[in-house]
Amino acid sequence: MQKHADKFILLTGFEPWNGEKYNPTMDVVEELAGSVLSGCKVLGYVLPVSYRRVKDTLPALILEKKPLVALHLGLAPGSPVISVEKVALNIMATGPDSDGYKPSGEPIYSDGPVAYFSTIPVDMIVESLRRNGIPARKSFFAGTFLCNYALYISLHTVEMYGLETLVGFMHIPYTPKQATEKASPTPSMCLHLMVEAVKIALETALRYVGENSNQVKK
Amino acid sequence: MQKHADKFILLTGFEPWNGEKYNPTMDVVEELAGSVLSGCKVLGYVLPVSYRRVKDTLPALILEKKPLVALHLGLAPGSPVISVEKVALNIMATGPDSDGYKPSGEPIYSDGPVAYFSTIPVDMIVESLRRNGIPARKSFFAGTFLCNYALYISLHTVEMYGLETLVGFMHIPYTPKQATEKASPTPSMCLHLMVEAVKIALETALRYVGENSNQVKK
Amino acid sequence: MQKHADKFILLTGFEPWNGEKYNPTMDVVEELAGSVLSGCKVLGYVLPVSYRRVKDTLPALILEKKPLVALHLGLAPGSPVISVEKVALNIMATGPDSDGYKPSGEPIYSDGPVAYFSTIPVDMIVESLRRNGIPARKSFFAGTFLCNYALYISLHTVEMYGLETLVGFMHIPYTPKQATEKASPTPSMCLHLMVEAVKIALETALRYVGENSNQVKK
Amino acid sequence: MQKHADKFILLTGFEPWNGEKYNPTMDVVEELAGSVLSGCKVLGYVLPVSYRRVKDTLPALILEKKPLVALHLGLAPGSPVISVEKVALNIMATGPDSDGYKPSGEPIYSDGPVAYFSTIPVDMIVESLRRNGIPARKSFFAGTFLCNYALYISLHTVEMYGLETLVGFMHIPYTPKQATEKASPTPSMCLHLMVEAVKIALETALRYVGENSNQVKK
Repeated sequence: MQKHADKFILLTGFEPWNGEKYNPTMDVVEELAGSVLSGCKVLGYVLPVSYRRVKDTLPALILEKKPLVALHLGLAPGSPVISVEKVALNIMATGPDSDGYKPSGEPIYSDGPVAYFSTIPVDMIVESLRRNGIPARKSFFAGTFLCNYALYISLHTVEMYGLETLVGFMHIPYTPKQATEKASPTPSMCLHLMVEAVKIALETALRYVGENSNQVKK
Repeated sequence: MQKHADKFILLTGFEPWNGEKYNPTMDVVEELAGSVLSGCKVLGYVLPVSYRRVKDTLPALILEKKPLVALHLGLAPGSPVISVEKVALNIMATGPDSDGYKPSGEPIYSDGPVAYFSTIPVDMIVESLRRNGIPARKSFFAGTFLCNYALYISLHTVEMYGLETLVGFMHIPYTPKQATEKASPTPSMCLHLMVEAVKIALETALRYVGENSNQVKK
Repeated sequence: MQKHADKFILLTGFEPWNGEKYNPTMDVVEELAGSVLSGCKVLGYVLPVSYRRVKDTLPALILEKKPLVALHLGLAPGSPVISVEKVALNIMATGPDSDGYKPSGEPIYSDGPVAYFSTIPVDMIVESLRRNGIPARKSFFAGTFLCNYALYISLHTVEMYGLETLVGFMHIPYTPKQATEKASPTPSMCLHLMVEAVKIALETALRYVGENSNQVKK
Repeated sequence: MQKHADKFILLTGFEPWNGEKYNPTMDVVEELAGSVLSGCKVLGYVLPVSYRRVKDTLPALILEKKPLVALHLGLAPGSPVISVEKVALNIMATGPDSDGYKPSGEPIYSDGPVAYFSTIPVDMIVESLRRNGIPARKSFFAGTFLCNYALYISLHTVEMYGLETLVGFMHIPYTPKQATEKASPTPSMCLHLMVEAVKIALETALRYVGENSNQVKK
């Protein structure tokens, strides 16, 4: 059954930052980019860790591709599980970014609301992941850096332009190899498990889209 | 090059305890039992979580098999990495065990020393694991329950009977599936990585045996 | 210099819940209730851990007293420092409360925004606390239980009725005595330090009120 | 009732190290030095964080003063509670110390046993502390730096010279002020609580000495 022919999924990762040489979200995106999930083609992008450049490119990307689902990935150093984010805050309070910009708590969009809830089915995704043996939790705080920023910008774009795109964010742990380079014992997760997790999340979101559009049609 | 023909490795895991339904050390032992590493056959055993029954069987097992290496495995709930243990203390202070026995700080052997250092090359093993991308650390405290107990008993047996067996202990994390059953986010490690870690540890220990016997011969 | 004659501060704590016999916020409130800070009288209240009863009483209390500052206190089990909260989310997702009510993610007010930022000067307060030797941090997530709930309700009430009340929330750690009753080692803070912290926070907020009204007047 | 006239307690702290400007053990020692507990005079010393200089002075100090109790204090960065140490290991594996010496796992005394158990009544002390509202735990690992080193040296000296001195070690947390200087939220304990804890520990140890000498006399 082909559900969403000629429909897209937008999947983004981030470049390494803060002295890290590696960001596992790049490998997850590369692994899934070009594949087809439930009839939807995965478009993969790697975002720079730059406030300015993400704002310059991400809204345009969403408006151009009008994806069914936009799922952003970020690295959560030290986290033991996958975190599916529920909240995006209208604040920039961490830095400096790769361009050397250091915000001090200003809003992302001065006319935007204090926060958005992400629109992917967070509870269903966390439940699916755990049922498939992948440690995951719902999170209500995506930080005040580029991860929260990308999530807020996508949600705001979708809201401003009345798109139907479901938007979400998943924080993933270090890979085991990456964890070996840290001074103190730190949690990690195998890359193949993180790829599997993203696939499950996307399929769960698409199934949710399908069920909701059916309901609307009836 | 066949190094240790007709020589054995003793590899032990533990049964589940404390309400857990699963202990990943059983799967690691099952995976490696019967295999041949550097010419040594791996003899696998699963120990009961019982002070009495481990004391009744473990010394006899070591005396009968006279393994080149005796490596014991245990589960460390909540640990983010593999811990290669350096110290065994002459104390029993955690319980109750599977037989309902609850010690209160008494010595394992009333005539034994306060502690033994494990005799596998702990630093070399930790370094090998990390070089192979597996998060690991050296630990100086193996608890006061059955894990410390098995390590102490093996070291004491080898000391008492003048055997050449190298003795060690590795604590492994939860598996990802097991971690999904915990109430709060908890670290885990894929089973295939833990199996790989135990193989690397055994091969490193055997190489160390080989190098040391060569030195002795010269 | 008498700054705010006949003006009030509203300070609330919570009753114990979840099997705890004690909630240190009650002692902090009792300690400060009736005192006068920068010319403002502290009105102390202890809230029930009940979604229904807090909604029934807290808005009326704020409308009646029209305090200059409404500062709510809650216990954060396991936290090592004082957390000054920046965000209140329009969600109820933790339970059951003292009345046995267990929400499942529904909004606090169905017509309320996704979130409010608290209106006390969070950064200034955190800085004042640390400068005075009291460990503190800014937090962007106050949970999804009664603490977040009280903060959201106060902010929403102030917004709906156009009050000038500054609203905030501080999470405090266990007391040392309380920490001794926990099964595993857990952080704590002396009660006198928490009382001092709340005084500093209130005085900082009142100074901020004073400075801002002066600016407005000019 | 004067129990131990002309008898001494040896209480030691450490100088700051590793970039810290402050070590709270110095203040605890200063607070109690010169005081009389259960008829015993407290002799206070601050040890340098130097392998060489501690070995040069600590054994001589114990042999000269022949204290009833020798209690060493150390700072445990990040610890949420007081840790009463049970084990001293014959190993030096952390550095560099204040003299720039960096050991690599060598024994403290090449002819010493692998470990000593401390001889103060650890369980009684932990119980007394908790009963008095001070968070505390028994610990089986005092690190591989100067803390473990001082404990081992004192125990070895007492053993070698057949003294009756009870020897122990307590790790204390950061003070609140000190914790405010750390980059991330970190546990702390008020100095007055740590002073109280050390008094309780010493009195408990002296009571234990008294009870045991009575038993011996009978």
